[in-house]
Amino acid sequence: MSATVITYHRAVGRWEPNARGRLAQAAMALYAEQGFEQTTVAEIAARAGLTERTFFRHFADKREVLFYGMGMAQDLLARAVADAPASATPMEAVGAALQALGAVLEENPERARLRDAIVSANAELRERELIKLAAFASVVAGALRGRGVPEPAASLAAETGIAVFKVAFARWITGPGQPGLPETFRESMAELTGVLTDRLASSPSPP
Amino acid sequence: MSATVITYHRAVGRWEPNARGRLAQAAMALYAEQGFEQTTVAEIAARAGLTERTFFRHFADKREVLFYGMGMAQDLLARAVADAPASATPMEAVGAALQALGAVLEENPERARLRDAIVSANAELRERELIKLAAFASVVAGALRGRGVPEPAASLAAETGIAVFKVAFARWITGPGQPGLPETFRESMAELTGVLTDRLASSPSPP
Repeated sequence: MSATVITYHRAVGRWEPNARGRLAQAAMALYAEQGFEQTTVAEIAARAGLTERTFFRHFADKREVLFYGMGMAQDLLARAVADAPASATPMEAVGAALQALGAVLEENPERARLRDAIVSANAELRERELIKLAAFASVVAGALRGRGVPEPAASLAAETGIAVFKVAFARWITGPGQPGLPETFRESMAELTGVLTDRLASSPSPP
Repeated sequence: MSATVITYHRAVGRWEPNARGRLAQAAMALYAEQGFEQTTVAEIAARAGLTERTFFRHFADKREVLFYGMGMAQDLLARAVADAPASATPMEAVGAALQALGAVLEENPERARLRDAIVSANAELRERELIKLAAFASVVAGALRGRGVPEPAASLAAETGIAVFKVAFARWITGPGQPGLPETFRESMAELTGVLTDRLASSPSPP
């Protein structure tokens, strides 16, 4: 009997209920406690009471635990832009996409905060996060072109939307007195419009 | 006599005139011809008529040939923001920084185009480029805070400036009929203001 088969039999209940969720939770806890770099898949599996083999049925590697929602987020962004009313301006369509993503992230603020702390602490993960955001911008620009928005307006609106996402998300994640994420996106978008249309726009009364 | 010493003596004219420039030119030509990944430091040195040892006196690795101007660019951006007139709005200060960077890049458009083609063709280099742009945004945000611009306005203006940089640079690099880079930055910034302040801003006459 080979070692592989033994492992197979030992994994009582091969299709563990919510194995994915348990593995993700165990991984995040370990990354936060001892660092992403220092954590092994063996430790994650042990903490979750599952096998390494089960881990690799759900995640390609350690990093994917932190990025597996990316495809879903891209679909969400693209759909929100496409579904915005025909009368919506490009920036309003981008705003709708941020609202949709914000609503999802807000469902589990504890996870979002923990994930952000883990990603911020590791250079490789910070780089991966930048790539994720660049991919988001591409997806949004493509969806805007799908609405007939010409270039460079589509790319400008998309890249600016991601700039707002970055700044507003950082604000929400660090500020305990901050309103919800969708509201923070709205505030930041309004603030950016003020910043771009001269300081007059942000001063309460004209001279 | 050790191998090291022989190498030393073989490198006729240890301090070659413009070794750095010759190495950079040879490296860029090889990256463009056969790909970044496929090119070795030995090939670069041979093409430049210099030794590998000389290469490593000027560059830490193959990648640095494409990114060594980054520190200078950051200084330039920070100085341009700091030196903008006291009356300049945050976005005008960011605009001044883009103008300064654009003027430098425009000095050698051939190099800029070749470098862009090399970076675009390689995933690792594209990632490195994203990290560079994120660092630019941090530097600009810091310089804005140094002018007394509060957060989140400083980060929003800086990230948006980098968004404009990305889109305008891509436009300039691919469009042969495009005006100069500083002018393209100006155009894109104006276009973004139009996009953000509703479509009315970009339509010539009100209904």
